[in-house]
Amino acid sequence: MSVPFQTLAQFRDLLTQLPEVDVAASKAAAARNSQLTKPLGALDRLEDIALWMAGWQGREKPRADRPQIVIFAGNHGVAALGVSAFPAEVTVQMVANFQAGGAAINQLARTFGAALVIKSLELDRPTADFTQVPAMTEAELILALAAGWEAVDAGADLLVVGEMGIGNTTSAAALSAAMLGGAASEWVGRGTGVDDAGLHRKAAVVAAGLARHGAALSDPLEALRRLGGREIAAMAGAIARARHARVPVILDGFICCAAALVLARCAEGALDHCLAGHVSAEGAHPRLLAALNKEPLLNLGLRLGEGSGAALAIGVVQGAVACHSGMATFAEAGVSDG
Amino acid sequence: MSVPFQTLAQFRDLLTQLPEVDVAASKAAAARNSQLTKPLGALDRLEDIALWMAGWQGREKPRADRPQIVIFAGNHGVAALGVSAFPAEVTVQMVANFQAGGAAINQLARTFGAALVIKSLELDRPTADFTQVPAMTEAELILALAAGWEAVDAGADLLVVGEMGIGNTTSAAALSAAMLGGAASEWVGRGTGVDDAGLHRKAAVVAAGLARHGAALSDPLEALRRLGGREIAAMAGAIARARHARVPVILDGFICCAAALVLARCAEGALDHCLAGHVSAEGAHPRLLAALNKEPLLNLGLRLGEGSGAALAIGVVQGAVACHSGMATFAEAGVSDG
Repeated sequence: MSVPFQTLAQFRDLLTQLPEVDVAASKAAAARNSQLTKPLGALDRLEDIALWMAGWQGREKPRADRPQIVIFAGNHGVAALGVSAFPAEVTVQMVANFQAGGAAINQLARTFGAALVIKSLELDRPTADFTQVPAMTEAELILALAAGWEAVDAGADLLVVGEMGIGNTTSAAALSAAMLGGAASEWVGRGTGVDDAGLHRKAAVVAAGLARHGAALSDPLEALRRLGGREIAAMAGAIARARHARVPVILDGFICCAAALVLARCAEGALDHCLAGHVSAEGAHPRLLAALNKEPLLNLGLRLGEGSGAALAIGVVQGAVACHSGMATFAEAGVSDG
Repeated sequence: MSVPFQTLAQFRDLLTQLPEVDVAASKAAAARNSQLTKPLGALDRLEDIALWMAGWQGREKPRADRPQIVIFAGNHGVAALGVSAFPAEVTVQMVANFQAGGAAINQLARTFGAALVIKSLELDRPTADFTQVPAMTEAELILALAAGWEAVDAGADLLVVGEMGIGNTTSAAALSAAMLGGAASEWVGRGTGVDDAGLHRKAAVVAAGLARHGAALSDPLEALRRLGGREIAAMAGAIARARHARVPVILDGFICCAAALVLARCAEGALDHCLAGHVSAEGAHPRLLAALNKEPLLNLGLRLGEGSGAALAIGVVQGAVACHSGMATFAEAGVSDG
């Protein structure tokens, strides 16, 4: 597939041409839902999910038997500043683990029948330290967005995007603060389990990044270039591609939502094809979800990344779609409808 | 299989001889968990579930690829008192729908690879109106407990029990009030969608039942006999049988939890092999879960019954078990453990 943008301006243009939900399919699904053998509304959130899936897939009976999970991995210049409980080598080690089938996301992909794609993004070349210079050049940002765009299978019926990148909660915190305001200390959290001293270093790094880049951060894509990482940009590219292909997306945790926020800040309604898979244990994730106006499906205290919370939510979406698309109507079943 | 009780006294005895969790298997699983390629605790609730499954199944690497769902159906004398939004005929109609594969639970069972068993309990012979007389004779109660006991596949690795029975939220509310105290109005809810007048009738019916049976309700099994229903007793029998077979159980909504409460009131720790699959939209379910000291896995606003919320939670348990049993250790994967 050729990626339909070579410049940031072209990527921006694509965000102004987002396809909308198929209202006719949504209405057909709602009509079907009202005839299924259950009290109307008795499956509540599952009914909402089924109608939303119907609208994005453009069919009365949506499907979720061909989910795709794409995990992007990147390394961060700020990892050298002591912001993580793990050394930066763990990124490449975990990618090898993904490729060997040994990580949590491999097991979850198998459990829910999802195709799993791993995209390593120049792990031997971390982004620059954003406390000093922009994390990426414009060319690097475009390459990362393109890597995300082209990783998406347009024939999938559901997409999860996830990440691996030591130091990336720091980057996501900086991005969130840049786009939503608030102090650095309000956006940093323990990530994979940093101690109190590390948490203070994270806050200082985020504050330094915000101070260093100042007013340049007012443009969301410029904030992404200056404070983000390749895997974060790739997630944004993948979510945008999914929208153009009308593939519904399940958002994962804090880092994924920071990537999604970039799109939301570029174009109103840019995340209408996304639902929040879960709320994680990362302290600022609830606040980020609130800013995205997304109610998470699951709340299980996860803080692993790798798309794991969103992958777990695939099961809920599959259940919702199965009920909607497979149940009998009152007339078919000969059941009195109250 | 022959059921090991013919009298209520024998059933009570079985509740005093409950097998406990396999501590060695739990410890082996905890040791394994600490070596898996993730920050310790990063899968939080999923880790808890995996260790709990390991303990009950008695193996370091638990499984959840052979789940069983058993749905019990019964009719209620109090349904004639206008406590439901649906007529009593719907119970038998929905059983036919279950058998034809058209209900929500059929789709959820297929989604998560669960064996589905439907047990109709004398639908043409509703329990007696508990505002006047005990709902069941002792012989009827024993038959219902036995139907539950023998429906369980002792070779399953996970059990969901669910129900269908027009009027059974009224019965469950009466049982809850009898065992936990509080006014009838605090325990009744809208069930499948009763209106305000129906809700007032439900509260009046529950209050009348409590007044009619008075001090006789202080014994949990006697409360079950006087206020319960066949499907509620069968769920209690099935949960007890699962404990004796060391099969972990996912509890469903308000009615299932009322059945479970009977066991919890008979024997301390009787529900240690159970987790709460979800919190439903039935108003008193959170209070009932709190009394059981169970934190629900899901909160999706469901109010369908049929074991649907617990069935959806099978996916979460399968994900938890897959991660625990399938992931590589740090040593196997060559990943630095921080």
